[in-house]
Amino acid sequence: MDTINTWGMWLRHLLEVAATMAFTLSGVMVAARSRLDAVGVYAVAFLAAFGGGTLRDLLLDQRPFFWVRHVEYLWGVLALATAAMLFMRQRHFEPTERIMQLPDALGLGLFAAVGVDVASSAGMPALVAVLMGVVTPVFGGVLRDIVCNEIPTAFRDHRPYALCAFIGGWVYLGLAGLSTPEWLALSATVTITAGLRILALWRDWQLPLWRVEH
Amino acid sequence: MDTINTWGMWLRHLLEVAATMAFTLSGVMVAARSRLDAVGVYAVAFLAAFGGGTLRDLLLDQRPFFWVRHVEYLWGVLALATAAMLFMRQRHFEPTERIMQLPDALGLGLFAAVGVDVASSAGMPALVAVLMGVVTPVFGGVLRDIVCNEIPTAFRDHRPYALCAFIGGWVYLGLAGLSTPEWLALSATVTITAGLRILALWRDWQLPLWRVEH
Amino acid sequence: MDTINTWGMWLRHLLEVAATMAFTLSGVMVAARSRLDAVGVYAVAFLAAFGGGTLRDLLLDQRPFFWVRHVEYLWGVLALATAAMLFMRQRHFEPTERIMQLPDALGLGLFAAVGVDVASSAGMPALVAVLMGVVTPVFGGVLRDIVCNEIPTAFRDHRPYALCAFIGGWVYLGLAGLSTPEWLALSATVTITAGLRILALWRDWQLPLWRVEH
Repeated sequence: MDTINTWGMWLRHLLEVAATMAFTLSGVMVAARSRLDAVGVYAVAFLAAFGGGTLRDLLLDQRPFFWVRHVEYLWGVLALATAAMLFMRQRHFEPTERIMQLPDALGLGLFAAVGVDVASSAGMPALVAVLMGVVTPVFGGVLRDIVCNEIPTAFRDHRPYALCAFIGGWVYLGLAGLSTPEWLALSATVTITAGLRILALWRDWQLPLWRVEH
Repeated sequence: MDTINTWGMWLRHLLEVAATMAFTLSGVMVAARSRLDAVGVYAVAFLAAFGGGTLRDLLLDQRPFFWVRHVEYLWGVLALATAAMLFMRQRHFEPTERIMQLPDALGLGLFAAVGVDVASSAGMPALVAVLMGVVTPVFGGVLRDIVCNEIPTAFRDHRPYALCAFIGGWVYLGLAGLSTPEWLALSATVTITAGLRILALWRDWQLPLWRVEH
Repeated sequence: MDTINTWGMWLRHLLEVAATMAFTLSGVMVAARSRLDAVGVYAVAFLAAFGGGTLRDLLLDQRPFFWVRHVEYLWGVLALATAAMLFMRQRHFEPTERIMQLPDALGLGLFAAVGVDVASSAGMPALVAVLMGVVTPVFGGVLRDIVCNEIPTAFRDHRPYALCAFIGGWVYLGLAGLSTPEWLALSATVTITAGLRILALWRDWQLPLWRVEH
């Protein structure tokens, strides 16, 4: 059991780092496309990496923030954005985006599970907890796009992203309600959310279209 | 007196529901015009409905939020946005907007009164309380428009909207200063604010224009 | 020593007023360019003047906000924006912007120093404190530009602005670490940050360009 916990902690930490890197790089690339300067690239990278979790903690009144408890993540984002500006070129953007889809999907799952867990521990009703599980992984990208003066990708992409986190959140609450051990509920949520997202990308699933014109 | 209070509670509840529906539908329609997907429609509907009150409570450090205490409103917005996507078509937008002007004006009055009341109960100075009364009904629409990548209607429409809430806020503080019973101050503020808004729409009042070019 | 403190307080107060005026006028002018109505001009003026400090205090969970403790600043911004709408014309914009560069640079220095001081007094780690010193003077302008549907100037101007505050923040922490008296650390930070900004404008320094296309 202890072994599982230790391994679980390591795995979670690894996922967290990989997902934060994916979110950071998404910020760096959107900023570059919008022709921001170096300061703008750093700012958007920070927003993309920490915006969602910070908004959740602000709404739940939870302190200290993740990036205050773990300043090393702030330094990491700073270093990664610097490295990207030194070594990345336009031709690397598309392959990077493709490779980042996996850690991004895993981050979607992990941050959804963490978000719903934090919110329901704070005594939030089920729907609020699930929505916090959606806000955590999704709103970093939303803030990133707003600053770059674009309509958020998460709101116009038609490929399920937030929806996977929404479903994953209910799975987590369901498992927690059955007194499933936390590591198991967490793993199941990450697997289901990330799996749905990967399936959605692979099978090119689309959200139901609202045919407003007819 | 008890009868008045009970009736007052019912009336207030009714106004709250009607105004929240008007704000939700405004979010749904702006999102549809900006061609958001279903997730975007829900997100903008939530922002339009709860954004202003949430920002006020965040600034005043008041918890729990309205939508945490009354999760049924979250479910209601979810249901209304779903119904709108199932049954609304482009041709319904203009008539809906016209019909919604009344509950929207009443919501402007109600949320202005609630906002200034919450803020002055929290010990805020008069001007801050009045500004919170403006933020509560107005900033949901502001966030809705920012996410849809538009300049907020409330800031470029030239028809008085926030201004009515500003005037209503001072009326509320004036009446409260005269120790008017709360239900009377509330009703007067709603009537005056909503009345001003309806008059402004009906008589086509315009904010004074800043002739910056001359 | 008492004399220095009294003079220091007066100087700081003077800088605060001058910088708030510069931030307000920047909001007024950006709003006018985006053709906002009078309500929009006031809203953007408030955001430009108080947005950065408010975001900092929200993140640090510090209450009451500056503009609650000093409502006279709210009235001042209201009056200044009104005066600008009554008397300013397009042809005054460029000279105003040029004249405002000095109080704006001083405000950058002052608010950076205040921001890093507030954050490190709240027990934040060094990098977080420095970033709060950047957020304080910079995010008012960022919010101003987002509401006006523009990519924030601070993120695409290529002329160092936030960077001066970043450097000034480390200077402040360095001096504070050496137990320098507060008024001295504050003055040095303001001088260095504002000096760097003025030098950057005068010598037309540019942030290193990320040649992403090559």
